[in-house]
Amino acid sequence: MPDLRSVIFVIGVLLSILAAAMLVPTAVDLAFGHSDWVVFLTAAAITLFVGVAMILSSRGGAMEIQTRQAFILTALSWVVIAAFAALPFAFSELNLSYTDAFFESMSGVTTTGSTVIVGLDDAPPGILLWRAILQWLGGIGIIVMALSVLPMLRVGGMQLFRLESSDTSEKALPRAAQLATSIALIYVGITAACASTYGLFGMSWLDSIAHAMTTIATGGFSTSDLSIGHYGSPQIEASATVYMFLGGLPFVLYLKALRGRPQDLVRDGQVQWFFWIVVAAIAAMTAYLLVQRDDLAFMTAVRLTAFNTVSVITGTGYATSDYGVWGAFATTGFFYLMFIGGCAGSTSCGIKIFRFQVLYATCRSVMGKLVHPSGVYIAYYNRKPIPESVSESVMAFFFLFAFSFAGLALGLSLLGLDYLTSVSGAATAIANVGPGLGPIIGPAGTFEPLPDAAKWLLSFGMLLGRLELFTVLILIFPAFWRG
Amino acid sequence: MPDLRSVIFVIGVLLSILAAAMLVPTAVDLAFGHSDWVVFLTAAAITLFVGVAMILSSRGGAMEIQTRQAFILTALSWVVIAAFAALPFAFSELNLSYTDAFFESMSGVTTTGSTVIVGLDDAPPGILLWRAILQWLGGIGIIVMALSVLPMLRVGGMQLFRLESSDTSEKALPRAAQLATSIALIYVGITAACASTYGLFGMSWLDSIAHAMTTIATGGFSTSDLSIGHYGSPQIEASATVYMFLGGLPFVLYLKALRGRPQDLVRDGQVQWFFWIVVAAIAAMTAYLLVQRDDLAFMTAVRLTAFNTVSVITGTGYATSDYGVWGAFATTGFFYLMFIGGCAGSTSCGIKIFRFQVLYATCRSVMGKLVHPSGVYIAYYNRKPIPESVSESVMAFFFLFAFSFAGLALGLSLLGLDYLTSVSGAATAIANVGPGLGPIIGPAGTFEPLPDAAKWLLSFGMLLGRLELFTVLILIFPAFWRG
Repeated sequence: MPDLRSVIFVIGVLLSILAAAMLVPTAVDLAFGHSDWVVFLTAAAITLFVGVAMILSSRGGAMEIQTRQAFILTALSWVVIAAFAALPFAFSELNLSYTDAFFESMSGVTTTGSTVIVGLDDAPPGILLWRAILQWLGGIGIIVMALSVLPMLRVGGMQLFRLESSDTSEKALPRAAQLATSIALIYVGITAACASTYGLFGMSWLDSIAHAMTTIATGGFSTSDLSIGHYGSPQIEASATVYMFLGGLPFVLYLKALRGRPQDLVRDGQVQWFFWIVVAAIAAMTAYLLVQRDDLAFMTAVRLTAFNTVSVITGTGYATSDYGVWGAFATTGFFYLMFIGGCAGSTSCGIKIFRFQVLYATCRSVMGKLVHPSGVYIAYYNRKPIPESVSESVMAFFFLFAFSFAGLALGLSLLGLDYLTSVSGAATAIANVGPGLGPIIGPAGTFEPLPDAAKWLLSFGMLLGRLELFTVLILIFPAFWRG
Repeated sequence: MPDLRSVIFVIGVLLSILAAAMLVPTAVDLAFGHSDWVVFLTAAAITLFVGVAMILSSRGGAMEIQTRQAFILTALSWVVIAAFAALPFAFSELNLSYTDAFFESMSGVTTTGSTVIVGLDDAPPGILLWRAILQWLGGIGIIVMALSVLPMLRVGGMQLFRLESSDTSEKALPRAAQLATSIALIYVGITAACASTYGLFGMSWLDSIAHAMTTIATGGFSTSDLSIGHYGSPQIEASATVYMFLGGLPFVLYLKALRGRPQDLVRDGQVQWFFWIVVAAIAAMTAYLLVQRDDLAFMTAVRLTAFNTVSVITGTGYATSDYGVWGAFATTGFFYLMFIGGCAGSTSCGIKIFRFQVLYATCRSVMGKLVHPSGVYIAYYNRKPIPESVSESVMAFFFLFAFSFAGLALGLSLLGLDYLTSVSGAATAIANVGPGLGPIIGPAGTFEPLPDAAKWLLSFGMLLGRLELFTVLILIFPAFWRG
């Protein structure tokens, strides 16, 4: 058993930050004169108390974090944060059970966007803002993790993104902290730009801030049951489409662009693939929709498909229309789009573009060797040879993803969910998308009617997907706890 | 462009053998006094004519078959055989369109078992036997290919099975021919044993031979629309369960067993995994079914689940009950079972057990390296280290399988099929199972109502699955045709 005092210390710090974040909805509820401010203040007090207790209790421990502690810290911190972030949901006038509160909270911090709350339009302002804040914090949290922790832990091929900056290894830590700060500033900047755009096109200030936070985080929580469809505004939908797409790009490239290398953003293989996959998916969906519904104008079809395609592929999960009723190709197409995800180093989830690039390059090289056994076929990523450990990790990731997805779907069907709900529920959880397919959990429904056990299973699925599988699965791997 | 004369020669020989095989249903229809004997004789004459023409036209070519010719031969021979084997279906009193005839024929030679024929119980005896013969020939064809061609071509990790006998490389060809003959004899022997068992439990001689052929081939064509359920006999179902399972084991191990090493069969890792996966699946399905339907006796539940589980996992596709109505867990469970398949070197299809073993071992080793980066973690298969090229091939296979499956499902949904029909149709084709899920193509339906384009797409999917993907996909790989 590794020494966990450093882990407890860091989680204590994170809980204290979470407690501070709870003061924002406290203030908003006070400003709106809503009695739920007490709820947030109470939750903040409890969270701060536990956080400080954890900090104090871990005194005297070695502050060094080694590989095993890092894995435990990563998985545990997201669970503990979700557990405490759930308190306001449980205490508020929404009167959610703790299961529902935890589901909502986990769906928030993992930037999934599945909800159990019916009647968002009448929900207290503090709660609406809290949901947005959770996704926003989850979004920056995952970007920072993808920059620092995941490449170090070499999870699912993420070491690919360590190699790029390995030339400064002796100054790694200060550089990482500096990098994280710069990227956090960019994150704040894009959020502000997005909120201003929404405000400009007619959203209230609270709605525009809340939606900007969940757009950039590709989270998808909305302040209305009808999601973005509530506004019926082409301008808002177009802006959301652009900002969701931006949320799906690697944030480190924005930093490079600001530092005078905008060409890096355009030349990056992952960005190019992502762009063309999105364009191809929109084109296919638009063509299909126009054939299916000849009453639809071309621009209306583009508006519908562009928004919903980007929303699903980035794992945001906003909706303007129940695409489940567009027809069979749309249902099947959106199902597969869920899995793709955005770029590594973005706020989006799913398998991610760079893994498809690695898998494609590896398959090409395997095929090449089949034809010319003595030929030399090297798989490249961004014009550099892919190290073997990376392609092995990526392929293992892909298998574990398929396997975990199947396991979740089987589990859900065992709990009585029908086939489409089980399968799309498993997909939407592990790919952190938000809505599933079908009448219950589809874009027009919520997760509220599901049995409690299904909500816990889905919460586990969201955690698994958000932490790139390995970080969670390794904890049930016996060798992890040995020696 | 490689010299294709040797390819044309071999296909000519195979067509001549196919023409000879058509004489069997000719004789049976004559014996039954059914006028369709003319149909088979005509088809045999056409097939023989083309076969002999191909043999003659390829005179003077180098008879050497190199890697590229071997790939072309493998893919082309299955397509050409299916095209000519379809003639009797097209000419017979069933009056099938050529699309339907080709679908039925491809479903036969790939041992899939999906059918477009409604009214099997009243179909001419020659046609019923012809369907069985196609699956039986397809079954032995794939075993011989898995022994000789596929390991040589190193398709999807099949080189694993070349290494085992690489110690006699200088006598490889005579040894392979001798091996193929011995295994063909065993195949005939098991078929005869199966037919006798069926006869003993009450099937007519024609039915027992036809079913024995499609049982051992894990093909699943029946002589009745109700499949094995037609007989309502627990003895026949139990026998079929055993023989389908036997059809899913590596036939080379039967040879070893006969040569005095029966322990090899029991100790083989692939056989052990297959056995325990089957047992676990039956146990889970039985427990679920008993909970769902409390009117069901324990032994009835076991009988239902054992038969249908083995039928689906081996890709046979017989049915005794529409398991689509057992409940959500059964639907989802059978969906995943379709993909698993039997052992390499058997007549069954799907991803196959050894690939799951390789994937599991690789994931373990990847996880081990995550925890202890400097540790040595080697992936083993049957107590031998897995060569890196094998694990790479297997992982590429898994990705291409998922990708091809998704592509097929998307294509089917584009042709207007609903979600469950598209997804399960794609799965049942690429895994060569037979029936899909849902009211149209489920165990109680047929593929007859589907549009023509869907039947061609599914035929392509069956070919893809049966030939282990690479053999077909490599032909659309540009580097294949270069230099």
